[in-house]
Amino acid sequence: MANNKVLLVDDEEQILLSFQRRLKKQFNLDIATSGKQGLEKLDSEGPYAVVVSDYRMPEMDGVHFLKTVKQNHPDVVRIMLTGFADIHTATKAVNQGQVFRFLTKPCPPRDMAEALEQSIRYHNFIISEREVIDLKRWRKSLEQMVAALARLVESRDAYTAGHQQRVALLSVAIGRAMGLEEQTIDTVRLAATIHDIGKVYVPLEFLTKPGSLSPLELDVIHTHPQVGYEILKPIEFESPISRIVLEHHERLDGSGYPQGLIGSEILVESKIITVADVVEAMCSHRPYRPSRGVNKALGEIEQKKGVCYDPEIVDICLELFRKNNFNFQI
Amino acid sequence: MANNKVLLVDDEEQILLSFQRRLKKQFNLDIATSGKQGLEKLDSEGPYAVVVSDYRMPEMDGVHFLKTVKQNHPDVVRIMLTGFADIHTATKAVNQGQVFRFLTKPCPPRDMAEALEQSIRYHNFIISEREVIDLKRWRKSLEQMVAALARLVESRDAYTAGHQQRVALLSVAIGRAMGLEEQTIDTVRLAATIHDIGKVYVPLEFLTKPGSLSPLELDVIHTHPQVGYEILKPIEFESPISRIVLEHHERLDGSGYPQGLIGSEILVESKIITVADVVEAMCSHRPYRPSRGVNKALGEIEQKKGVCYDPEIVDICLELFRKNNFNFQI
Repeated sequence: MANNKVLLVDDEEQILLSFQRRLKKQFNLDIATSGKQGLEKLDSEGPYAVVVSDYRMPEMDGVHFLKTVKQNHPDVVRIMLTGFADIHTATKAVNQGQVFRFLTKPCPPRDMAEALEQSIRYHNFIISEREVIDLKRWRKSLEQMVAALARLVESRDAYTAGHQQRVALLSVAIGRAMGLEEQTIDTVRLAATIHDIGKVYVPLEFLTKPGSLSPLELDVIHTHPQVGYEILKPIEFESPISRIVLEHHERLDGSGYPQGLIGSEILVESKIITVADVVEAMCSHRPYRPSRGVNKALGEIEQKKGVCYDPEIVDICLELFRKNNFNFQI
Repeated sequence: MANNKVLLVDDEEQILLSFQRRLKKQFNLDIATSGKQGLEKLDSEGPYAVVVSDYRMPEMDGVHFLKTVKQNHPDVVRIMLTGFADIHTATKAVNQGQVFRFLTKPCPPRDMAEALEQSIRYHNFIISEREVIDLKRWRKSLEQMVAALARLVESRDAYTAGHQQRVALLSVAIGRAMGLEEQTIDTVRLAATIHDIGKVYVPLEFLTKPGSLSPLELDVIHTHPQVGYEILKPIEFESPISRIVLEHHERLDGSGYPQGLIGSEILVESKIITVADVVEAMCSHRPYRPSRGVNKALGEIEQKKGVCYDPEIVDICLELFRKNNFNFQI
């Protein structure tokens, strides 16, 4: 995929042919015998990575030519080739930094090869930088889209609308306070945003029932981490998102579901979401009860710290609310 | 965000101090007086972008030191500083390409500055490349997640399950054959994947009704592009995804909905999805009719080419099916 196309421009054709003969194995070399022809080639046969231009040429000199290249094809790295006598004039004429390298005539092919290699590397760097910006933008759009679709899926139950988004918010805050790597935090955010996705297959009547649930109804509700896992498993995640969704109701002492995992068997990402999930749920209104309030929610995780919930995560969560005044507003 | 941390290692402390004094404005310079100390600093105070090491040092020479740096911190760009008399030995000792630059003592600060600048640029290039790979992986995961959630949303209506995915497949094939840019094709794929998202607010009874629909029922169904637009509009897309979703039932002659746009008012991305949507829908079974078959579907777009559907897109679609044996298997 790396672009190694180079355009050499010089009015002395034998110089071009000599470079082409000596360097054709290493580089994808094109030639042009005037600035005009060079500009045409750049338009019709590009994109090029590098342009090398002679300084003294009739009609359009190297400075004028390279300036036009910069305007029309700003990503192309530019090298100026000058007679030794010209170099002072050329460096003065071309603004510092506009040209990546100056080479002097006669230029040994080895020097040309080295300058071209460095220029191609520099060109690839420019392209990579741009790509990173584009990809980051896309990633943000896609994350927002996932969140929008997750809200749509949870909109069947107005009582829990926004729950996943708020759990994501708290989970990310906990992850940041723990000093986790940015990539792990991204994973936590995404997993939290869709951790209840398996509830789409739980009958709405069970989820919104005002009274207490029968053991059978509870069993059905308890399938949702497994169902969520099945939905997400086929997606080739590089990060353990489906596993986190599967584990978000596990407890340190093995009293959770669906696998009854204990302590170190549970991913730290899952443990974070578990704590955030409990706190958010207790802070929110439910059809069968009003909000229990922040203090009651924090009391719950404090009381079961080390039994159900990871002690470090609990401490950090308590500190976020009590010292940093964290809140769920999004 | 760019990392410009440099570590200078030399057993002659006055050399280190001199570089530090001369270059501290330009670079974030650390120093170490032995290889051992250098390795410790790399572990505890990194990440560094560049390491410059003297060749002749007691206990651990520059070759040994830089080799260890390469093993433990492969992203750090390495520069070797040697006495002129050492350079032959040093270049032989250090494998070509393992060290980015050789500098000779005495080294004017200007030369050092230039080498450091190029090394930092090279280091950033290495990091960018890695980031591009990570981001591409994430983007793929997120795209798959959007597709999975879109399938989940459409799973309420078993008759159209997979419809959006298949429309995306055909739309991308059309876009490729048209020679569109990769970024536009990405946009088309994503918009197609969720183009019917607004149907979540259309009563299921209307969508799956076996008989013909009343004008009022049709009016409700016809709101789905607008509803989809409202769902997606709040997301900060850099690409016109919500607009494409809004426009996917428009027709060239103004007979479409919801805006009754004509010809050039409609985005080319929307026109592609429109054609793919019609063809896929006619090829698939529906509750109120069996599949009409590919030939009938292609006949429909051929007949209304230039009236309802963009002529170029129709021709490309026909060619895909008739010459390239395109099919909807995913």
